[in-house]
Amino acid sequence: MSEKTRLSRRNLLKASALLAAGGLVPDPRDSSAQSPPAPPDSTKVLGALPSELGDRSPFEAIRRQVGRIDPDGYSLTPLETLSGIITPSDLHFERHHAGVPAIDPDQYELLIHGLVDRPLKFRLEDLRRFPSVSRICFIECSGNGYLTSFDPPDIPEEITPGQLDGLVSTSEWTGVRLATLMNEVGARSSATWFLAEGQDAAVMTRSIPMAKAWDDALVAYAQNGEPLRPAQGYPVRLLLPGWEGNTSVKWLRRIEVSDAPFMTREETSKYSDARSDGKVEMFTFSMDPKSLITSPGFPEILPGSGWFQISGIAWSGHGSVDSVDISVDGGNTWQPATLHPPILPKCTTRFSFSWHWDGRPTLFMSRATDDKGFRQPLYADAREGRGPATYYHNNVIRPWNIDADGRITFGLRSMA
Amino acid sequence: MSEKTRLSRRNLLKASALLAAGGLVPDPRDSSAQSPPAPPDSTKVLGALPSELGDRSPFEAIRRQVGRIDPDGYSLTPLETLSGIITPSDLHFERHHAGVPAIDPDQYELLIHGLVDRPLKFRLEDLRRFPSVSRICFIECSGNGYLTSFDPPDIPEEITPGQLDGLVSTSEWTGVRLATLMNEVGARSSATWFLAEGQDAAVMTRSIPMAKAWDDALVAYAQNGEPLRPAQGYPVRLLLPGWEGNTSVKWLRRIEVSDAPFMTREETSKYSDARSDGKVEMFTFSMDPKSLITSPGFPEILPGSGWFQISGIAWSGHGSVDSVDISVDGGNTWQPATLHPPILPKCTTRFSFSWHWDGRPTLFMSRATDDKGFRQPLYADAREGRGPATYYHNNVIRPWNIDADGRITFGLRSMA
Repeated sequence: MSEKTRLSRRNLLKASALLAAGGLVPDPRDSSAQSPPAPPDSTKVLGALPSELGDRSPFEAIRRQVGRIDPDGYSLTPLETLSGIITPSDLHFERHHAGVPAIDPDQYELLIHGLVDRPLKFRLEDLRRFPSVSRICFIECSGNGYLTSFDPPDIPEEITPGQLDGLVSTSEWTGVRLATLMNEVGARSSATWFLAEGQDAAVMTRSIPMAKAWDDALVAYAQNGEPLRPAQGYPVRLLLPGWEGNTSVKWLRRIEVSDAPFMTREETSKYSDARSDGKVEMFTFSMDPKSLITSPGFPEILPGSGWFQISGIAWSGHGSVDSVDISVDGGNTWQPATLHPPILPKCTTRFSFSWHWDGRPTLFMSRATDDKGFRQPLYADAREGRGPATYYHNNVIRPWNIDADGRITFGLRSMA
Repeated sequence: MSEKTRLSRRNLLKASALLAAGGLVPDPRDSSAQSPPAPPDSTKVLGALPSELGDRSPFEAIRRQVGRIDPDGYSLTPLETLSGIITPSDLHFERHHAGVPAIDPDQYELLIHGLVDRPLKFRLEDLRRFPSVSRICFIECSGNGYLTSFDPPDIPEEITPGQLDGLVSTSEWTGVRLATLMNEVGARSSATWFLAEGQDAAVMTRSIPMAKAWDDALVAYAQNGEPLRPAQGYPVRLLLPGWEGNTSVKWLRRIEVSDAPFMTREETSKYSDARSDGKVEMFTFSMDPKSLITSPGFPEILPGSGWFQISGIAWSGHGSVDSVDISVDGGNTWQPATLHPPILPKCTTRFSFSWHWDGRPTLFMSRATDDKGFRQPLYADAREGRGPATYYHNNVIRPWNIDADGRITFGLRSMA
């Protein structure tokens, strides 16, 4: 591969040292381990036979970076290697609190009970007989981008877009509307909350307002066309479009309908937001508007002045992305990026911007605004408004530095 | 697995005997080979660690069926196992005439020459510097559904939806507009056609009107977010949305701009349509509106009367799907199916219909109409209009029989 790629690898190794301990640190674009065979003239050699599964090219061994090898671990989507908005299912980020359970689909049952007229158990084949819905939407871990959180403001510069924000991925999800199942069990009008419980060893539990059940919650059994993969909740997960990922409970085995939240560990000890007044906010479900430039980014090195594409993804849990603005002068002036259709609610939207880099050091960044009027804040503004102890829901503007040699590093330290 | 699944496997083996010789005949839903381990209570056992790639569940070993093991072969998307519209990239159908070539991306070049002011070669990294476009669209092989062609009318009854029409798949494709590259090389106003040439051992060549280059042709390097897979044209393919798959030349190495078509083998000997008047039509590029019920279908057996979801996909190369109608009485009466968003032009659209089967034998089917007013024809009408020798572009209505025991078989023989 090229000189540029070799430099990339070395920088990536440095960058990875800044991540949480215990992680594997493969270059997600690593293709240099050994040159796979390719004939000098492929038109003179019969090619490979058709096969049952289409492998990736050996030149494109992309993979997730495991951020922490632990049952309470995670792996990151290599955002800088992806185009468009769809994340291949095997590259969708994973985050679980007690590992990925192995579940036999023939033994699987979903119980819905509590404030309902007819408590019922649904097998997988029962769920598949209900009218289904598909939607393309993102899932983002509430803690995504935690390296830019406010206390301590320990902001690495040598970090890739995927290492920074790889706990967001987008898929086409298919399942039954939870509203359909709530009608089937006869959820009572007094019901205001439900508990969603997972079948993993963490027995993950979250309290969800019934309004979400009646709105757009899905009980999903398929992702990008195929059955869910185990790390994504096989055989069945809850899917709450636009809400922090933790609420889309995987390996969903039980829903208990109630008239009050259940105050589980995952909404009292965790997944709550410290405020600047010293109080803590609970049940901050929606993910706020955010954008991330995925290219160019560390460890890329631009070969010199000229035209480049700035490309990235923007998303909001409140609705659709309305606009993305780009600044290439440290945030002084902003110009609109092109949004690429389809622009779907609660879904990542690809944006791009043609940039003529003049070869001088600068700071470039993107800023998303959604169709409800919410806008991605600057680090300083967010820190002042939320206070230094906030950890989750970190959607501050993500700037990138470029120096005179074309070297790109994460630039938040210059802004903070 | 269940009795139903075992029956399914047996029937599938029968069905496969009707397919072209030499094929592997796996049940795409086969999970009975050996029961993978799943603990009796997954909440009592720590689950698997995070990983670099998320595997499928061992209970869901879906795969393509190889229709012909030959460098001039193909494999079929298992449509009956899929939900929504996205096809996972490793399950996208493949069709090639001399095998899948291995190409080193660092050696790759695309030459554009002929009636242009500046003949140019583009490396992969050059292409990536141009403004990119992503779009979700289908690719359908011109010969898809050939088993229902008119001469001879040898129509199998024991065939799955994927075996029948699995040469259609849908992905999000990303690349550069060919129009952008045509502007870069300065294509002359006298140019009316171009040749697209592949870097495989077939040196696949097709003549394409320049109008398509200026309209929506893409030079694509990514599929479903990631780099193209080798079977889909790695590193670069042409993508002509809505047109017969063969024109979306894979492993694209050369484009020659001209003022006349090149009359290659693949548009004279092949990919032309015999008409009822004895003449042959060339350059019939667009795929006509078509719909296919993917569930229920052979070898499914409905467990008894009751409510079932009829689900399928519809598409048209002319534009968007406007409506899909369902008949559950042999084509006498029709009712509208629900179309699931997003409804995108030149893309598959998922449709569904809630059907209360009364337990009596009948014939059920779907019929697509696109937003240009084109409608999927009945077999008899298509045969009369096109003549018996037509082979490509087979979009006739696909009916399914259900007998009193709930057994479903392909029902075209009953209609022809």
